[in-house]
Amino acid sequence: MNRVCPIISLLTDFGSQDYFVAVMKAVILGIVPSARIIDICHDIPAQDIRRAAFVLTCSYSYFPKGTIHLAVVDPGVGSSRRPILIKTKNYFFVGPDNGIFSLVLRQQSLVKVIHLSKERFFLTPISQNFHGRDIFAPVAAWLARGVAPEEFGPRLDSFTRLSFASPLVKKEKIIGEIIYIDHFGNLVTNIHKDLLDGFCQSAKDFRIIIRGKMVTGLVNSYSDLPKSKALAIIGSANYLEVAVNMGSAEKFFRAREGMKVEVWRR
Amino acid sequence: MNRVCPIISLLTDFGSQDYFVAVMKAVILGIVPSARIIDICHDIPAQDIRRAAFVLTCSYSYFPKGTIHLAVVDPGVGSSRRPILIKTKNYFFVGPDNGIFSLVLRQQSLVKVIHLSKERFFLTPISQNFHGRDIFAPVAAWLARGVAPEEFGPRLDSFTRLSFASPLVKKEKIIGEIIYIDHFGNLVTNIHKDLLDGFCQSAKDFRIIIRGKMVTGLVNSYSDLPKSKALAIIGSANYLEVAVNMGSAEKFFRAREGMKVEVWRR
Amino acid sequence: MNRVCPIISLLTDFGSQDYFVAVMKAVILGIVPSARIIDICHDIPAQDIRRAAFVLTCSYSYFPKGTIHLAVVDPGVGSSRRPILIKTKNYFFVGPDNGIFSLVLRQQSLVKVIHLSKERFFLTPISQNFHGRDIFAPVAAWLARGVAPEEFGPRLDSFTRLSFASPLVKKEKIIGEIIYIDHFGNLVTNIHKDLLDGFCQSAKDFRIIIRGKMVTGLVNSYSDLPKSKALAIIGSANYLEVAVNMGSAEKFFRAREGMKVEVWRR
Repeated sequence: MNRVCPIISLLTDFGSQDYFVAVMKAVILGIVPSARIIDICHDIPAQDIRRAAFVLTCSYSYFPKGTIHLAVVDPGVGSSRRPILIKTKNYFFVGPDNGIFSLVLRQQSLVKVIHLSKERFFLTPISQNFHGRDIFAPVAAWLARGVAPEEFGPRLDSFTRLSFASPLVKKEKIIGEIIYIDHFGNLVTNIHKDLLDGFCQSAKDFRIIIRGKMVTGLVNSYSDLPKSKALAIIGSANYLEVAVNMGSAEKFFRAREGMKVEVWRR
Repeated sequence: MNRVCPIISLLTDFGSQDYFVAVMKAVILGIVPSARIIDICHDIPAQDIRRAAFVLTCSYSYFPKGTIHLAVVDPGVGSSRRPILIKTKNYFFVGPDNGIFSLVLRQQSLVKVIHLSKERFFLTPISQNFHGRDIFAPVAAWLARGVAPEEFGPRLDSFTRLSFASPLVKKEKIIGEIIYIDHFGNLVTNIHKDLLDGFCQSAKDFRIIIRGKMVTGLVNSYSDLPKSKALAIIGSANYLEVAVNMGSAEKFFRAREGMKVEVWRR
Repeated sequence: MNRVCPIISLLTDFGSQDYFVAVMKAVILGIVPSARIIDICHDIPAQDIRRAAFVLTCSYSYFPKGTIHLAVVDPGVGSSRRPILIKTKNYFFVGPDNGIFSLVLRQQSLVKVIHLSKERFFLTPISQNFHGRDIFAPVAAWLARGVAPEEFGPRLDSFTRLSFASPLVKKEKIIGEIIYIDHFGNLVTNIHKDLLDGFCQSAKDFRIIIRGKMVTGLVNSYSDLPKSKALAIIGSANYLEVAVNMGSAEKFFRAREGMKVEVWRR
């Protein structure tokens, strides 16, 4: 970890109309004035742990090694759900034990999980509904200052993992689903580039069906097709995406997360 | 004040679709390159000085001592309303003299108020409608560089204070109001934890009425009640809040700021 | 350029609901940990190169000399449109060659334009739809670390410039248009203060017509007129603006960008 200018990322569902994120940053800077705080996203829909897990898994690995990722989408705040710190090979993750780190932990080798229980690192009195401010931000900050993970509490043997739908691979088709729709209306599926490569001989060898509409083959650029045409592309997270050149595939297909996407071999 | 890496917070109603906030930051960094600039909020509804005052009072004290809080919700920009700098025991506040600092000054001991009148610290020519860029940002930056408050202009004996509704305490009930609705739809009232503690023997001793609907007693966590049930909680700003587990109390009660909230002794 | 703490500004149409901006920042900090990254705006409407060009031209010059302005509104991502680096007298600009820098280059003397073609400065493999992450962010970061512009690729003799409508000046009137509507609903026209000064003897010498409605003369402050009255003002970017005191001129006039604005000599 770079203890001179440690990097702390923030991911929450706090939105931008209140002061919640700012207060977390203020608490961090009060403990570790040299911290570099980077917002990943605060517009996760309220309580949507799964979306937060996906956003985190698409972004955490671009940060320098040693970055502390602070993720607070926390519908169980104030209940018995545990606050945790996870150390993996290259990063630290701080947040509630509700599955928000599930996808990251499919990729990163786990070193240890700590139950955050040492109140001396918390802001007191601890509020009932803002552990981002009172527990997670100060813990991330003390960690950034060099406190060892073990000092925050005992090790845990198990923690919450959410399951995420995997594509179903049949002889003639892959049945996947839309797992994420981005700001541009691009439809990100759970069909990974590698799965697709194994399934088809070439990018021209398949067609995609969403809600009865067909999209043929892969393009290399949105502008390979005329304006307002639907297209398929391998997106920046290495999953199959369906997009519309200069438009929104979300609107074009009236798509929603969870909808089925079929890839048929020709 | 930490003159090595001074912290400047920003609170405005400038939104996120333009370049206004960025230009203020650019001006600050041009004067004091080492400044740490932290956004409190830029989504205050246009010209809503009262909401800005509340957001500031919920957040300023979490920042390290010496932080310069720059708040620009300024419907009177270009008129005769004065630009001011307030020094309190622990912080500095820079912005228009329109009452935006009213709530903060109920909590912080006032040291002095300065009328910002020395144009040599401003960007010239001063525009008619962007004093955030031309007056407030450069003043905050020069202050962060170590210019003494007195150098920015003469002391003022009086300044604008807004009044905010206080709860009415009767024998059998407290009549308060909703003063803030947050991103999650939680209804923050003006009934402080201390007032409630004095009024009731225990958290089970009262019931709350909003728009004819009843909420009973306090819980410690949103998830103490079933999903979609209304509940009362002491929020992170120490005021009584009404919330809905995994939902929006704003929608549930069709609530708006200013609505009456009654707390009845059982 | 300040190589100790170089400043990199970011302007995109990536919005705030995903992780795209964060990943660009992460990539930058991985290459140049001391970078100061300032968001100009991420809420440019998707693919709206013209609006991005305007936002950039209103903001870039307030940044310290040597700032690297990274602008990614890039509908042609993955196509043959070139990634470029522009060095002007005081700044650097990095982004796609699609005209996004057109307005800036009317003001800044051009030193050189480089075609970004040296893949050793890119993240590999380069994705098909996120050159902000894979090309532009790393190039800006390496530039901030001190790599000379020439090292990123060959010089270009020409690049894309968009044309923007200029006002038409007749004997008795100027015919301009609304080129930008801000968050407050203020209507920014393409009629520059200097043009207006040359056309009229004084601020009281003209009247403005938008959609058949008349606005008379210039005021110095929004509050010079009663609440909800339309007014004209020289805005902070030095263009004629039409506003409504404590209201939205966009709503008042049901205005849209591109609408005609006439200034008549009395």
